[in-house]
Amino acid sequence: MKSIQVGLLGIGTVGSGTFNVLRRNQEEIKRRAGRGIEITMVADLDTARAKAAVGDGVQVVADARAVIANPDIDIVIELIGGYGIAKQLVLQAIAAGKHVVTANKALLAVHGTEIFAAAQQKGVMVAFEAAVAGGIPIIKALREGLTANSIQWIAGIINGTTNFILSEMRDKGLDFATVLKEAQRLGYAEADPTFDIEGVDAAHKVTLMSAIAFGIPVQFDKAHVEGITKLAAQDIKYAEQLGYRIKLLGITKRAKGGIELRVHPSLVPAKRLLANVEGAMNAVVVHGDAVGTTLYYGKGAGSEPTASAVIADLVDITRLHTADAAHRVPHLAFHPNAMSDDLKVVPMCEVVTSYYLRLRVADEAGVLAKVTGLLADAGISIDAVLQREADEIGGEGSTQTDLIILTHDTREGTLDDAMVQLQALPTVLAPIVRIRKEELS
Amino acid sequence: MKSIQVGLLGIGTVGSGTFNVLRRNQEEIKRRAGRGIEITMVADLDTARAKAAVGDGVQVVADARAVIANPDIDIVIELIGGYGIAKQLVLQAIAAGKHVVTANKALLAVHGTEIFAAAQQKGVMVAFEAAVAGGIPIIKALREGLTANSIQWIAGIINGTTNFILSEMRDKGLDFATVLKEAQRLGYAEADPTFDIEGVDAAHKVTLMSAIAFGIPVQFDKAHVEGITKLAAQDIKYAEQLGYRIKLLGITKRAKGGIELRVHPSLVPAKRLLANVEGAMNAVVVHGDAVGTTLYYGKGAGSEPTASAVIADLVDITRLHTADAAHRVPHLAFHPNAMSDDLKVVPMCEVVTSYYLRLRVADEAGVLAKVTGLLADAGISIDAVLQREADEIGGEGSTQTDLIILTHDTREGTLDDAMVQLQALPTVLAPIVRIRKEELS
Repeated sequence: MKSIQVGLLGIGTVGSGTFNVLRRNQEEIKRRAGRGIEITMVADLDTARAKAAVGDGVQVVADARAVIANPDIDIVIELIGGYGIAKQLVLQAIAAGKHVVTANKALLAVHGTEIFAAAQQKGVMVAFEAAVAGGIPIIKALREGLTANSIQWIAGIINGTTNFILSEMRDKGLDFATVLKEAQRLGYAEADPTFDIEGVDAAHKVTLMSAIAFGIPVQFDKAHVEGITKLAAQDIKYAEQLGYRIKLLGITKRAKGGIELRVHPSLVPAKRLLANVEGAMNAVVVHGDAVGTTLYYGKGAGSEPTASAVIADLVDITRLHTADAAHRVPHLAFHPNAMSDDLKVVPMCEVVTSYYLRLRVADEAGVLAKVTGLLADAGISIDAVLQREADEIGGEGSTQTDLIILTHDTREGTLDDAMVQLQALPTVLAPIVRIRKEELS
Repeated sequence: MKSIQVGLLGIGTVGSGTFNVLRRNQEEIKRRAGRGIEITMVADLDTARAKAAVGDGVQVVADARAVIANPDIDIVIELIGGYGIAKQLVLQAIAAGKHVVTANKALLAVHGTEIFAAAQQKGVMVAFEAAVAGGIPIIKALREGLTANSIQWIAGIINGTTNFILSEMRDKGLDFATVLKEAQRLGYAEADPTFDIEGVDAAHKVTLMSAIAFGIPVQFDKAHVEGITKLAAQDIKYAEQLGYRIKLLGITKRAKGGIELRVHPSLVPAKRLLANVEGAMNAVVVHGDAVGTTLYYGKGAGSEPTASAVIADLVDITRLHTADAAHRVPHLAFHPNAMSDDLKVVPMCEVVTSYYLRLRVADEAGVLAKVTGLLADAGISIDAVLQREADEIGGEGSTQTDLIILTHDTREGTLDDAMVQLQALPTVLAPIVRIRKEELS
């Protein structure tokens, strides 16, 4: 059987990884896929770099449109990234009847509805395993492996940069800014790390998982996005003393009024496997009504791990392109005419979860009673309290101390209101720190 | 589109779970699969139990052959288990042109070659996600998600009963026999637990994973199978002191002379996620050349977790049956004409791994020097030594003590020879305990 011919747009880290793995394992991949899969054409503005990466025998062009226009190309891999030219090229490839493989989470989380509709209409596939959690086959697990389940919730460490920073902050007791610099030096964080540290990248990924899990459209604009830049080393330490670790989680959850969709730092019980995912590794926990809790762990980024996902998509397309379109795996797991329009993303004030609160308070009699009384009046139930000795906080003779409170499940709006009241107490001396807590049980 | 009609053979724990989940989530499954999937006929010798389980509207028969003979049935689920009647029925269903879904690891690990060949010839699929690690979609991950990779090794906790027993032995410091009784009382172990505690069940499962990972035929008869019945509580304690936990692992690995295929208790570094998989949970670590190390965790048994896998297979078949047979996912990941005949399972003496040795020795000068000298002469390199105080072992005035040695990587045959010599030392007072150790890095 004739080889499947693939055109690659953009040959940076992931692109060259894809080219190398496909070539190195070509024999084995062919034995699995039933036919060869070959990158025969590459487009990159830096044609010299591209030629150096692929060697002879592969056509290199500067203009990506030449790849799309090539009638011999069956599948186009988009590894340019971003919303601009990448979007145009993906839509052009679809219009030209090409199947598309992309690692572009930003593009799909924001413009997925338009892109998947175009693909559907044209009868081609847009595959994106590499867009979430790198080499971990989590899209396949959600879309196919757990298809029997009504998914209840997903919680994932889906950004390696922030997990590396948080692991280092905990290990070494350092603050955020110091560790960020180290991460940049080691190549774990980019020169402009905004998308990672502000939670945007994780939000793109959890948006995609949310759509697949619940049969709703991609709605990045509805996601609550909070990064790790404000996390203090002392909160990581206090959390540890209470039996928790702090992780940046992407969470999506079936809730009373709809679907929760949020990215923020979370306390996670130290005994959970997810809390023990260290460094730049990723892991996603999925809870289904039938299967219970499952977890998927691996490298979430990097040249060959991401290439592993890109190539898995190439093989899937090679297999499925002979199935009639109605029987292929739907892009977002649910058939387009069976998506839920009635399941809305709920606002954060309606989210129900538990909380870690840290209050810098005057070290005087009655403060604890006042604070806990106020929470009780608001109907907020307390799970644990940790009060530090004043001397430990401000040195000998200090008149301030830290009061740490863990709450039981509470509606976030209720807590917001209570925090306004707490903050107004004359004995509360600094802005209250509030971090959400997920038991994941 | 007409619903896919499914016939169920055997409605015990997993069968009723499958029926219930399929009915409870039928709407959502249909929205994913693109058409309904319905169990319309059930065969069970206990027709009264079957009728009670499925209610009205589903045909119940005592004779499974009536299900297979029904021309309206598209897919047959075999949940009878064992090698006997189950094998006949699976082959009859295939001959009748039915697709088959089975959770029967024993049948496939032993008779898989015959069954898959029959299915291939007839152009039908035999799907078995539920046969390994219950609800964890590990077959799909290996066969599709990691298809880009040359798999290097797999190590899994794939038997919940033994993991429950080992977790309890460690937690409570109890011995094997005591914990086994407790496990039987709680329903975690069967009245006849032989298949679980002797490692046979795990060996069935790792045999299937081995075939899929490396493109070799299923070869249960070549697997090295060792259970947990001889594990002593003190070895679990010593391992802990050295930073390890003991788990029953199913391991398959690309090695110099072929493929390793083995089930036995193993020390695993306590910091690895796999070492922290507790109770009846399962987890499989897969290392691929491109993706690196990935891990898959979840419930390995039980009614609805296993049903989750059975139904995922039903949906896959519903999707893929319209693809031409050459483009479906091959049963064992590799196309039948592309299996490796040259990759042999290597005998245990050729396996290279590291070891934990416990020697009960006379508490006298020169013993350690003698033992380590003998190992050095054999070319066996020592990683760590733990020597107990004699008083701790045999009480005050004891003249015996325990000497624990961790080795670096060693050829098992070399260690076997060295152990014969060690055992012959007059200062070695009891049979040496030898447990393999896997760093999984």
